[in-house]
Amino acid sequence: MPTTDTAPQHALRGLKVVECATVIAAPLCGRLLADFGADVIHVEPPGKGDPLRKFGFTKDGINPWWKHYARNKRFVTLNIPKPAGRDVLIRMLADADIFIENFRPGRLEEWGIHYEDLAKVNPRLIMVRVSGFGQTGPYSSQPGFGTLMEAMSGFADMTGFPDGPPVLPTFALADSFAGFYAATAAMFAVYNRDVIGTGLGQVVDVSILESVFSMLGPNALVHQMTGEVPARTGNRNTTSAPRNVYRTRDDRWIAIAASTQSTAERLFTTMGQPELIEDPRFADNTLRVANADELDPLVGAWIAEQTLDDVSALLYANEVPAGPINNIADLKVDPHAIAREMVVAAPDGDGEPLEMEGIFPKLSRTPGAVRHAGKDIGSDNAEVFAALGLSADEIAALEQDDII
Amino acid sequence: MPTTDTAPQHALRGLKVVECATVIAAPLCGRLLADFGADVIHVEPPGKGDPLRKFGFTKDGINPWWKHYARNKRFVTLNIPKPAGRDVLIRMLADADIFIENFRPGRLEEWGIHYEDLAKVNPRLIMVRVSGFGQTGPYSSQPGFGTLMEAMSGFADMTGFPDGPPVLPTFALADSFAGFYAATAAMFAVYNRDVIGTGLGQVVDVSILESVFSMLGPNALVHQMTGEVPARTGNRNTTSAPRNVYRTRDDRWIAIAASTQSTAERLFTTMGQPELIEDPRFADNTLRVANADELDPLVGAWIAEQTLDDVSALLYANEVPAGPINNIADLKVDPHAIAREMVVAAPDGDGEPLEMEGIFPKLSRTPGAVRHAGKDIGSDNAEVFAALGLSADEIAALEQDDII
Repeated sequence: MPTTDTAPQHALRGLKVVECATVIAAPLCGRLLADFGADVIHVEPPGKGDPLRKFGFTKDGINPWWKHYARNKRFVTLNIPKPAGRDVLIRMLADADIFIENFRPGRLEEWGIHYEDLAKVNPRLIMVRVSGFGQTGPYSSQPGFGTLMEAMSGFADMTGFPDGPPVLPTFALADSFAGFYAATAAMFAVYNRDVIGTGLGQVVDVSILESVFSMLGPNALVHQMTGEVPARTGNRNTTSAPRNVYRTRDDRWIAIAASTQSTAERLFTTMGQPELIEDPRFADNTLRVANADELDPLVGAWIAEQTLDDVSALLYANEVPAGPINNIADLKVDPHAIAREMVVAAPDGDGEPLEMEGIFPKLSRTPGAVRHAGKDIGSDNAEVFAALGLSADEIAALEQDDII
Repeated sequence: MPTTDTAPQHALRGLKVVECATVIAAPLCGRLLADFGADVIHVEPPGKGDPLRKFGFTKDGINPWWKHYARNKRFVTLNIPKPAGRDVLIRMLADADIFIENFRPGRLEEWGIHYEDLAKVNPRLIMVRVSGFGQTGPYSSQPGFGTLMEAMSGFADMTGFPDGPPVLPTFALADSFAGFYAATAAMFAVYNRDVIGTGLGQVVDVSILESVFSMLGPNALVHQMTGEVPARTGNRNTTSAPRNVYRTRDDRWIAIAASTQSTAERLFTTMGQPELIEDPRFADNTLRVANADELDPLVGAWIAEQTLDDVSALLYANEVPAGPINNIADLKVDPHAIAREMVVAAPDGDGEPLEMEGIFPKLSRTPGAVRHAGKDIGSDNAEVFAALGLSADEIAALEQDDII
């Protein structure tokens, strides 16, 4: 397994980012930047630290979420609600490019931190604000957990089976979209400031609700045109058939997506049932979608007679789009995943290197690097605070007062 | 409903993008850029046009997917596989910032289009290549539909119920993550070129498989630490409980995410069952996760006695994180969604304005604008080709030869 800690070039070298953020959207934004060489300083409360350090489970001192989402960053402690902490933060932001925060809207302002004041000190500052509902609107002060956004955005209502409940994801789906919006928009603001050359930063208001809502497709327009809302369709979809997952003889699953007429015809031929091509129930895609209740059992019965390996090879040879339902153990031994370095081992101090995804996407000239997994609390205090111009005595006093 | 066609400022004004791409990742990348004012020229085959124009269903000449994903772009036709078409494309790329393409890897090269040659003409060119499996690796030449990536990445295996099949999404989930990676990385490459000032473009290789794989959380590390792969947990998760959707008396659904001890305690108190706080099965989060089979029916029974409105108000008043399972019809009348302009009406030529999501996220100084929905094929041929320096006679000849 490769340890990619020696990439020569970083796309974002010199980009200074300060991140006061936790589970999970905003730290993902910082991670996307850090992977490509931005200097992302993660700020967390002294003592208890970032709750992400204790997310899910921790084993032998290693928390997988922390090690994963905090990789490639630097780590300082700072008690922002206290005036002395706030003052150090403002000092850090004086020459920062981007400030990422995900406090409940209004919280920073309660502590006396306002964008307008920061911009007077550093007009170039781009402030990326991630919250459940956004900085404005009637729900803005409510807590914004990803689960609620997956419920309220429309995601859950359109996921799952017609006769079952709405289905939530089991990973940070809404937060991930929000993390991407945050990183993308931050770079748009950098472009405006540095390439167009306005020299001015601005506030980027990322709502997790809007982030997932906007990825669900043209539901607003379909509703305007037809009065209909998206139905739960299980593993089928409304645009093509057959499209489903099917169980194999060896109790694995395979997905098939025959999205064009020619792929459906190749599938029927491969199944040894070319008569289905002319069958009036399945003769074109519209008919196949309408009659999926009759079509899926035919495909399913054929798949059920074969092993995953056999049927995969057969479908591949006949150019029918199909793919196994993999889990992470499957991917770790998949030849393509290995060739693409989808999983790499991140250096973790004196410990064993930790497995996590490689750096995506692949940039030919500035590929970025996995330099290290998430580190211990306060790991970079001395270096970062000294670079701010604080003396050893001043740093000791801040420690004494629980400010850092 | 607001028609936001008058925004004074665009973050990306002057950014020139040429997009040869279809369903759905790469066009989403272009859309993210176009929403903030980049000049995105969408190139499609003359005659038949982009397959996205016929995706799903079309009614009264309006295809919702096209109108939605193609908004804010310009539209030209070009027969790229023909040498004369290729030459016009190369002319368009001579001063472009970004070239987005999603052909099967190797296809552009078959037509004589190589990044190395393009870079000789325009060393600043950033070429964003979106494909199912990426440009390299043993599967790279296989078709890369989103469904297969949702299967092969691990998404489907960890979505759904323990006693049910893996669940695929009903929207373009994998493609959406890839669209974001493409836009984000394109801007990283712009930063490297224009802000750091290398002056050099590069190739951005976006794999849809890797895009969704990398959003699924620290599965590789959890597997390394425990030997376990993520289980399907339905609407529960492994990090907190109660976390589920519950049916109300009026046949709606509500999601609850009691992710901290204090929120769980507030929920139990709100339910009028404070004794659950001390119940040895539910006394802390680890116990609640382990005993979710016993906890969820208690919460579900309490929810089932109340209407969505009543229970929502009660949970809100008691600061228990909860949210209704909305669909698009719910959102169109939701006061927060209205206040945030989550749905806007896009101008569509002489037709009725078309409803689609607003521009996210919200940038304070350069908010972008919804200028128009996707337009007719070849709408901007005359303008774009004239700006390339082609004479009216030359354009007529290209039309005659089915090149444009």
